[in-house]
Amino acid sequence: MSDLYYPHGGDCYRNQIDYDFSININPLGMPEESKRAAFEGILLSDRYPDYKGEALCRALAKAEGVPEESVILGNGAAELIYGLCHGLQPKKSLIPVPSFQEYEAAVLSARGEITYYIMKEEADFRLSEEILSLITEDTDILFLSNPNNPTGSLTDKALLMKIARRCEKTGTWFCLDECFLPFLDREGELTMKHELSGFPHMIVLGAFTKVYGMPGLRLGYGLTAGEELCRRLKAALSVWNTSIPAQMAGEAALKDKEYLVKARALIQKEKGFLMEELSRGIAHKIYASEANFIFFRSREDLKERLLERKILIRSCHNFKGLSEGFFRIGVRTHEENLAFIRACNDII
Amino acid sequence: MSDLYYPHGGDCYRNQIDYDFSININPLGMPEESKRAAFEGILLSDRYPDYKGEALCRALAKAEGVPEESVILGNGAAELIYGLCHGLQPKKSLIPVPSFQEYEAAVLSARGEITYYIMKEEADFRLSEEILSLITEDTDILFLSNPNNPTGSLTDKALLMKIARRCEKTGTWFCLDECFLPFLDREGELTMKHELSGFPHMIVLGAFTKVYGMPGLRLGYGLTAGEELCRRLKAALSVWNTSIPAQMAGEAALKDKEYLVKARALIQKEKGFLMEELSRGIAHKIYASEANFIFFRSREDLKERLLERKILIRSCHNFKGLSEGFFRIGVRTHEENLAFIRACNDII
Repeated sequence: MSDLYYPHGGDCYRNQIDYDFSININPLGMPEESKRAAFEGILLSDRYPDYKGEALCRALAKAEGVPEESVILGNGAAELIYGLCHGLQPKKSLIPVPSFQEYEAAVLSARGEITYYIMKEEADFRLSEEILSLITEDTDILFLSNPNNPTGSLTDKALLMKIARRCEKTGTWFCLDECFLPFLDREGELTMKHELSGFPHMIVLGAFTKVYGMPGLRLGYGLTAGEELCRRLKAALSVWNTSIPAQMAGEAALKDKEYLVKARALIQKEKGFLMEELSRGIAHKIYASEANFIFFRSREDLKERLLERKILIRSCHNFKGLSEGFFRIGVRTHEENLAFIRACNDII
Repeated sequence: MSDLYYPHGGDCYRNQIDYDFSININPLGMPEESKRAAFEGILLSDRYPDYKGEALCRALAKAEGVPEESVILGNGAAELIYGLCHGLQPKKSLIPVPSFQEYEAAVLSARGEITYYIMKEEADFRLSEEILSLITEDTDILFLSNPNNPTGSLTDKALLMKIARRCEKTGTWFCLDECFLPFLDREGELTMKHELSGFPHMIVLGAFTKVYGMPGLRLGYGLTAGEELCRRLKAALSVWNTSIPAQMAGEAALKDKEYLVKARALIQKEKGFLMEELSRGIAHKIYASEANFIFFRSREDLKERLLERKILIRSCHNFKGLSEGFFRIGVRTHEENLAFIRACNDII
């Protein structure tokens, strides 16, 4: 993290905004039960958090169908990305881009070198089997997001299995970021979290931030069957790294089985609406995003013009492999989406 | 942090307890205004936190009388201790012991070596000028806590100034942990936070955890005038490292000017009561703690015997430089302190 370099969305603190489309989290916000649990957590915060987060780890293990000892809690998934780099000290890393910029920042903070694999626009920014030949004995860590952020492109499970196998062979740590995957109906057939035991070099990341709409609380997790990976990651994390309100809100969120079902339905419907509207002259091109956000090209000043109307979107010009005119918007509620489309239509 | 190694107090999750004397935080708990602000923070947590924490940094800078750019927020002071080690990569570190064990854990997590300077029981575990000759060009970082934890011993400002000067000369980073200092009436004459500009290798740590009784929320901070120190520490911290409820609770706490005054008066009175009672056969020796906790020797099974009575105290046998029979208790409210003394008198 640096003062001079803030490449993310969600900065509603230095922008006057009514609608934030720059973030890509659950448009339903935080479940009511999570809010209630977090309130209770405030009242208990004259204690230290459970440094093991046992109750939450148990609930997560059950929800994810993994052993309890596979779960590592983080102060947001971002902390785990840094923890991996500080704990594993990768000299050489491989990052397909454009992708989430904290992978790069974390590697650099641990003085690692980065090989970028550029995913091409012509291929809808999709990962191809080419990546396999780039994973060598020299590659210490590979960061991959599925679906990818900001493009929304998916990597199918067959290729992920090949990548994971290749990483085991070359001794490469494999950080697979599935923070957006639970928004997809096909999550079950795409996730690698049921393959942990075969790949001790792999860690799968998840985030309450995105899925349960609580970025302000900070809660993410990693799943791994790798004992060395687990030990080295935990050693790099400070004790009591997740707060009591976050732990309790997370545990409560996992109890609400309907919440994700509702969110998926809303996102599917509203994404269709937004894509339809965007295609009527607002976007020059819309890419095939499978996630809860839409990635498109438009006029280069779209962000600035929308900001005049107090709407924030994510300009993706500062992602490696992209340039001016690429944008990402999170799918929001119908009312918000309508306001966004109206503002766009005012501009074009 | 490791599953196998948990050297701290406050584990009310795997101990059945009514009273927790193992932690050394403000016995008044969290200020009401902080609770209210944290509740509000929960409701705003569908946003990302301000990654700069501008509002809190501004309030802290004002409260501490330092420039705003000197303030670095942490997910508890513990995160900053790890951040320092990951950002500065000290090869050789110097740690006077017995002291807070996270210094050691953080250095080791960054693969550093440690020279321990043993503070002697005969000298009431006080730091002496001897330490100066141990700070050499080879020393990359020095960790010091004032007052020290768990002994409560103070280092006077004249010696701290000498240490800080020596560190500038040898190019040694100097992490001065003042987390407990605000509990002392003499804080103003002892703190080094008004000396930042003269010592760019120095960082002074503070914690809302202790002073405002909110360990469950996680909020600490560092103060430094060193540009390189600031840049390297921030680079090692993940973005959005402090939550919205923590930032808002912190800001609210700083507005309550009476809170610390009340806490100091309570601690002074109750510490007197506890020391008086402990000296009547419970403690074999009470050391001269200047902090909000008491450090003493007693029968080796005191912790176990108190735990049978659902009271948790901190056994200090696992601190470097100590052994069985050393204990630390936080000063609590009169009702709690009475219960503790009664239980002790039952045992002896």
